[in-house]
Amino acid sequence: QILLRLVADQPVDGPLGGRHVVITAGPTREALDPVRYLTNHSSGKMGYALADAARQAGARVTLISGPVQLACPAGVARIDVTTAEEMLSATSRAVDEGCDLFVATAAVADYRPAEVAGDKIKKTDGTVSLSMVPNPDILATIAARTDRPFTVGFAAETRDVAAYARDKMARKKLDMIVANDVSQSGLGFNSDQNAVTVFSGEGEARFGPSDKRALAVDLLDYISHTMNA
Amino acid sequence: QILLRLVADQPVDGPLGGRHVVITAGPTREALDPVRYLTNHSSGKMGYALADAARQAGARVTLISGPVQLACPAGVARIDVTTAEEMLSATSRAVDEGCDLFVATAAVADYRPAEVAGDKIKKTDGTVSLSMVPNPDILATIAARTDRPFTVGFAAETRDVAAYARDKMARKKLDMIVANDVSQSGLGFNSDQNAVTVFSGEGEARFGPSDKRALAVDLLDYISHTMNA
Repeated sequence: QILLRLVADQPVDGPLGGRHVVITAGPTREALDPVRYLTNHSSGKMGYALADAARQAGARVTLISGPVQLACPAGVARIDVTTAEEMLSATSRAVDEGCDLFVATAAVADYRPAEVAGDKIKKTDGTVSLSMVPNPDILATIAARTDRPFTVGFAAETRDVAAYARDKMARKKLDMIVANDVSQSGLGFNSDQNAVTVFSGEGEARFGPSDKRALAVDLLDYISHTMNA
Repeated sequence: QILLRLVADQPVDGPLGGRHVVITAGPTREALDPVRYLTNHSSGKMGYALADAARQAGARVTLISGPVQLACPAGVARIDVTTAEEMLSATSRAVDEGCDLFVATAAVADYRPAEVAGDKIKKTDGTVSLSMVPNPDILATIAARTDRPFTVGFAAETRDVAAYARDKMARKKLDMIVANDVSQSGLGFNSDQNAVTVFSGEGEARFGPSDKRALAVDLLDYISHTMNA
């Protein structure tokens, strides 16, 4: 038992000892054809930092990750996905194993092209119209389960950040939402620094501006205290 | 003079000694709003390898690059751009300085969203339609100049590669076109390996499959012989 714990490098102590934490991170990519796709500026840094912090807090961590340029934190099980639909099915399977905490940091594409061309689409003159259909809502899907974990969402907005975050929390029935204003230069998307406001049944709390790794540790500490309260 | 040449690491010998070579590389990104964009799978590797090879062949090299994860080759002047329109204006300025050879390896987005939202677009239910307008054609714009350089295009196709490449060369009035079939797994986009067929007034030539760096050296040698013939 001791040997196994050493081999697996598995801390079972800590505020999340013995818990299963599922985290989504990074962008999704939605293909138009074999070469073109729609995506966004998410780097995945916040999600990866939270996965590392959850692991340090004793949890078993499953990280469902879109395409990013980051190494998987030690001791974390990463599942790579590309599209929103792939992210939903990987997340659902991870939560099926039993999940205590779900943190959705991924910047999931809200829409995907209605049709994916098998061959590269040729250029034509004039305006073209691209038909887009809504992607599944991963956060709302997990929060609607009868065996729902403590569910934390992220809101990346460019304006009316607090109002939108509170609305999103209520609409999707989340336990907590972490709001950051991506319009602030040097913070949020693709940056190493972040500052957030957290809303929950417990009220409101602010973290940062600080390094995403330090912020992740503070944030995870706050989340685990709130879910254990 | 000798000292300056050593300091600048500027080889003036070689088949392109004293020539100015302009190369575009990588994808472009076309924004929908502050967080979302349309792009493609181009890694920029072929363009960067050609820039390095041109430099080794004695040329002064200007590399106009979309967002990629690559270091600029030593002695090459890189100009970073994001959109197709930025790439066209940077390329035009570089050619204005006097240009002997233009090699367009960039995978320029054919279309961009007709409108770029200032704030993040909110998700709504149901299908949405995205209106797209054609981007400027960088290759045809440079080839149409009265002071046109020797102009080499690339064609990345998933089918009918040779037929499409010949048509593109005639339509855009290119001196040469390099065709690769991106549907071949392990070759082309985001790969280190490539195999190409080159069409020009001199006929047809095949290169590879080989490492993109080795291929770039052979290709640049073939280009400089053809343009000097």
